[in-house]
Amino acid sequence: MKNKMHAIVKEKPEYGAVYKEVEIPEIGPEQILIQVKSTSICGSDFHIYKWNKWAQDNIEPPQIMGHEVAGDVIEVGSRVQKVKKGDFVSSETHIPCGHCYQCETGQEHICRNMKILGVHQDGVFAEYAVLEEVDVWKTDPSINKDFASIQEPLGNAIDTILPGEVAGKDVLITGAGPVGLIAIAVANTFGAANILVSEPNEYRRNLSYEMGADHVVNPIEVNLLEAVQDIFGNKGVDFTAEMSGHPDAIRDGIKAVTPGGIVSLLGLPDDKLSLDLTNDIIFKNIKVVGITGRKMFSTWHIANNLLKNEKINLSPVITHKMPLKDFEKGMKLMEEGNCGKIILKP
Amino acid sequence: MKNKMHAIVKEKPEYGAVYKEVEIPEIGPEQILIQVKSTSICGSDFHIYKWNKWAQDNIEPPQIMGHEVAGDVIEVGSRVQKVKKGDFVSSETHIPCGHCYQCETGQEHICRNMKILGVHQDGVFAEYAVLEEVDVWKTDPSINKDFASIQEPLGNAIDTILPGEVAGKDVLITGAGPVGLIAIAVANTFGAANILVSEPNEYRRNLSYEMGADHVVNPIEVNLLEAVQDIFGNKGVDFTAEMSGHPDAIRDGIKAVTPGGIVSLLGLPDDKLSLDLTNDIIFKNIKVVGITGRKMFSTWHIANNLLKNEKINLSPVITHKMPLKDFEKGMKLMEEGNCGKIILKP
Amino acid sequence: MKNKMHAIVKEKPEYGAVYKEVEIPEIGPEQILIQVKSTSICGSDFHIYKWNKWAQDNIEPPQIMGHEVAGDVIEVGSRVQKVKKGDFVSSETHIPCGHCYQCETGQEHICRNMKILGVHQDGVFAEYAVLEEVDVWKTDPSINKDFASIQEPLGNAIDTILPGEVAGKDVLITGAGPVGLIAIAVANTFGAANILVSEPNEYRRNLSYEMGADHVVNPIEVNLLEAVQDIFGNKGVDFTAEMSGHPDAIRDGIKAVTPGGIVSLLGLPDDKLSLDLTNDIIFKNIKVVGITGRKMFSTWHIANNLLKNEKINLSPVITHKMPLKDFEKGMKLMEEGNCGKIILKP
Amino acid sequence: MKNKMHAIVKEKPEYGAVYKEVEIPEIGPEQILIQVKSTSICGSDFHIYKWNKWAQDNIEPPQIMGHEVAGDVIEVGSRVQKVKKGDFVSSETHIPCGHCYQCETGQEHICRNMKILGVHQDGVFAEYAVLEEVDVWKTDPSINKDFASIQEPLGNAIDTILPGEVAGKDVLITGAGPVGLIAIAVANTFGAANILVSEPNEYRRNLSYEMGADHVVNPIEVNLLEAVQDIFGNKGVDFTAEMSGHPDAIRDGIKAVTPGGIVSLLGLPDDKLSLDLTNDIIFKNIKVVGITGRKMFSTWHIANNLLKNEKINLSPVITHKMPLKDFEKGMKLMEEGNCGKIILKP
Repeated sequence: MKNKMHAIVKEKPEYGAVYKEVEIPEIGPEQILIQVKSTSICGSDFHIYKWNKWAQDNIEPPQIMGHEVAGDVIEVGSRVQKVKKGDFVSSETHIPCGHCYQCETGQEHICRNMKILGVHQDGVFAEYAVLEEVDVWKTDPSINKDFASIQEPLGNAIDTILPGEVAGKDVLITGAGPVGLIAIAVANTFGAANILVSEPNEYRRNLSYEMGADHVVNPIEVNLLEAVQDIFGNKGVDFTAEMSGHPDAIRDGIKAVTPGGIVSLLGLPDDKLSLDLTNDIIFKNIKVVGITGRKMFSTWHIANNLLKNEKINLSPVITHKMPLKDFEKGMKLMEEGNCGKIILKP
Repeated sequence: MKNKMHAIVKEKPEYGAVYKEVEIPEIGPEQILIQVKSTSICGSDFHIYKWNKWAQDNIEPPQIMGHEVAGDVIEVGSRVQKVKKGDFVSSETHIPCGHCYQCETGQEHICRNMKILGVHQDGVFAEYAVLEEVDVWKTDPSINKDFASIQEPLGNAIDTILPGEVAGKDVLITGAGPVGLIAIAVANTFGAANILVSEPNEYRRNLSYEMGADHVVNPIEVNLLEAVQDIFGNKGVDFTAEMSGHPDAIRDGIKAVTPGGIVSLLGLPDDKLSLDLTNDIIFKNIKVVGITGRKMFSTWHIANNLLKNEKINLSPVITHKMPLKDFEKGMKLMEEGNCGKIILKP
Repeated sequence: MKNKMHAIVKEKPEYGAVYKEVEIPEIGPEQILIQVKSTSICGSDFHIYKWNKWAQDNIEPPQIMGHEVAGDVIEVGSRVQKVKKGDFVSSETHIPCGHCYQCETGQEHICRNMKILGVHQDGVFAEYAVLEEVDVWKTDPSINKDFASIQEPLGNAIDTILPGEVAGKDVLITGAGPVGLIAIAVANTFGAANILVSEPNEYRRNLSYEMGADHVVNPIEVNLLEAVQDIFGNKGVDFTAEMSGHPDAIRDGIKAVTPGGIVSLLGLPDDKLSLDLTNDIIFKNIKVVGITGRKMFSTWHIANNLLKNEKINLSPVITHKMPLKDFEKGMKLMEEGNCGKIILKP
Repeated sequence: MKNKMHAIVKEKPEYGAVYKEVEIPEIGPEQILIQVKSTSICGSDFHIYKWNKWAQDNIEPPQIMGHEVAGDVIEVGSRVQKVKKGDFVSSETHIPCGHCYQCETGQEHICRNMKILGVHQDGVFAEYAVLEEVDVWKTDPSINKDFASIQEPLGNAIDTILPGEVAGKDVLITGAGPVGLIAIAVANTFGAANILVSEPNEYRRNLSYEMGADHVVNPIEVNLLEAVQDIFGNKGVDFTAEMSGHPDAIRDGIKAVTPGGIVSLLGLPDDKLSLDLTNDIIFKNIKVVGITGRKMFSTWHIANNLLKNEKINLSPVITHKMPLKDFEKGMKLMEEGNCGKIILKP
């Protein structure tokens, strides 16, 4: 094997990143080296690229970017048991400590000492990448490599929709960014009866219909709560999946649910947010659930099973594919918002 | 209004029933008179027709048969508030007492003093029928009248599949009689990743594929547990919906689920059944749930919402439609098993 | 029977109330007349007495106050089936419509058209009172009349603690007003391993220990989150029951729960509240549940069963008993906060 | 450190065991050596001693017996992170593979490739014992060493009672052997309102009251279902915890639950069992849950937390303590049934 590879490296603590040649990394006894077949851009990669406050607080350049990936195992550490050379794999992003209260009670996805792939250690925007055995996910080889790479955000969407018990229910999804778009498909696959999507970007509103939305509105132009009233009547929706982090979407998303309903919050608001707990949560006896990560690995089993059996259609959400070296084009698309998931091919 | 109507009457405590003219019934203050637009044959109607032991123990002829129905309200009792003249309605079959522990805790569907429409009082195989206010279900008028009539067995199927949390999971359905066939569609709509159906009748095996089955086997010809092994590997299925009542199907359905899995039992075995609780239930830490009726009315909301928004396709399961007077032909089809749901039109 | 009775009447839209003689009310066909044996003061009664903004928006004087009650049935309406003359009863406060989505799905406690006893119709601070059949709760006659009267706030406490799945868990209760004090006893009875209570009032802090608290702090004097750290370590608590409505208690109560934990909100903040959803709810994957009312009637069964079998000790929380006519003394105690539940005896 | 120790060894494939001197075992990189402070006899140890069919199928002598233990860590393997020398620990008995579907979805307690301490490898009836890192459980040092040793059966009891949601409910426990006795205390601690215990052995019936039973009957002398009727009326119990494995107890335990209720099965029937699924499970819409092992490690956290905070009293169930060498006396007591838990002290 050659010992150099190309990778996208966050080289300095400033805007941007570079495509350059670096050493192929070596693995430890509980690590796996993969040849990357497909990798995809997450919103957090864009934040690292732009060098926003969160990135400044969490990243120490130089570091290889990226965490959504699919590839082939080409080498395994001496103690690795989960996978073997030749397996087709993806990877969880959260690297749990294994020993905190959360890890000890089946909640590794919210480990108190969590490290994150591509944030606290080198990522996967490269020809080769190192995965941790605790994170590696053996993927059915029949699954398309690009879908395999976006299993990770698919897992976010699954964990956002599952608490909503959406089968036969009325659903509001606020925000149709890449994960929001996938959540539409998930809600549809899980039997939601009627899905309203709220999204300001026209490109993504159009994509929402392709992912399975029944109704799509632009919250800049129409009053979201009036749209809910028009479609679902005085009852409101049974469940809101909040995927935008926008303060108005969060507030209206909570107001839109019927008493006794459920709200999943995945989108991350930048700042603190003022809420009318008394009227919107307490008197309505609703349940608000914060969502982060993916259950390890019950969520991955669901994702893999849906893809393997072609019970979810992610094709429309993959709007762009490009060589790894063209990543700057991908970052520009992320900035404009005129995209779903963007696949980078090493 | 005329005061005579045609109805199918179980006239004597013996095999058979007659199509005859009877008085149009009068309603009490908490009852509703409907003009029947569509009614459908349930397995229990066939048992009443054949006069099996259960029928002999529960029915006092003469009595009008039938309980699955859709129709228009033409008269309401003085205290009725739920519906008004002109509403399109269906009806729950279980008539709860309202005052037992189950009724007082939101479980009216398993009331201890339950009466049953078409069993303990006159049913709906007629031009007009009396419904109880506690049971009447206002149905969206956009729903096809035949689908509206089979909301009741659709509700059985929903309550059988819901406890299985099937989204993204591997599912076995044993028995593709009319409710089993509907359960296939429900499991499919609720996101099951891979559905294996076991059914001895060829006609119904073919229908199973139309309802959404991924695999269908004849348990007379193949070993069901071997089929499970072939399709799902050593893991087995996550959930079995037992819709047949057949002892072998129950036993194999339980054996087929992976440790930690779930079994819903809807099919009614005729006799006591021998089970290996230690190895098949206890060591496997599985959950076995008995299913009866439909939650009043959360299940009906789900059924109505799926039909109204066309998120479930029941067309294939309605295999026969005939005038009410031809009901004997329907009973013959039920006997042979070469049918899905049979609709009778007054 | 005489036709006059004494009652506490909110006579004018202003501060205060009067103890006066009024007609004994007549009942409708679905109502029940009881002779009041014990009645108790709720925080909302105090708000009506003081004539705060909520009271001004909801009450139309003149009206008899009060809703927590125990008494003997002395007359039943013509259609009443649930109770008969001589039964010992209490009453739910929420009067559901019976026909909205919530009522149709077993959630009458959050009916969209809810009326409230003592708010929208005459209450129970009187020698006799009218109850609705839908609300009447037949109480085991072995239960002490004062405990029977506070079954209603006991139900609030039960529904606050139940979602916390507290068996063997670490629990924080913020606010030890009357319902908070009862919630301590409920958490203790339900198996909480370690209960920390936060309460500024010294009288109520002392009572907290009597109700079963393991630790009690004054949040004015100590930093609550530091106290949590001292007692529960870095893990935090598994569950917070927020019973105060105080903004700091809500925020700290949410911060105190460990990732994956649960928060019940019962206390009603006066105003909107600023929350750090990203760090305190979303990244922590916690569940926040708004609590109102009592499930009708599964919660009442639990309350009655605990009291009948003496598995919960409410004695310490009943700090004062006085004749109905001395209610002004009770209102003064409520104002000062140096009380638990106050019983009024007609 | 000396290199010999005393242990109870199942030396030959026949009735009995011997107390003898053996080598102190060496540990691998993911193992821990403890000095045993307290160990306790489980029913399965007695089966191994007696050499019943299950033991013959599962044990390969010679092997050290025993799996319930508490002790001090004296040496840790090179890769061990969970505990360090000097820690006070107990141990899970189930040794999961870490890679099957169950292990990958947070259900290690029902691993498909499970090994069992004291069954598939040397156990803990010895002065020193080897534990697996995956199983070791750091125990609060304030917990009494004998209670620490019976955390393992306490975990069984917790996992049996938890699915019953017993707070404020009516509970039947069939079988008051050692785990049944502990389950009484657990149900009591978790807020059961009224606990009926059924047990043929007089010694254990008396102990049942000490553990918190409200009613205790001898099913040989009284009809259990009549006793249920007398105590709980026509409603029956909300939950049965079946701890005996006796066919009559299983059948009556299922019949005793009210429609909509729950049954946990922990006791292992020797043979297949005939059940009336139609009337006792399906029409009643009840849930039957098989229980095995303890969740790793959420159940252990609950057990540890209850013991540390003295919220459960296990004192009465520890009926005998004796030196390890006197184990034959303990086995005799197990045979007669006149005991709770028996502690062996090395």
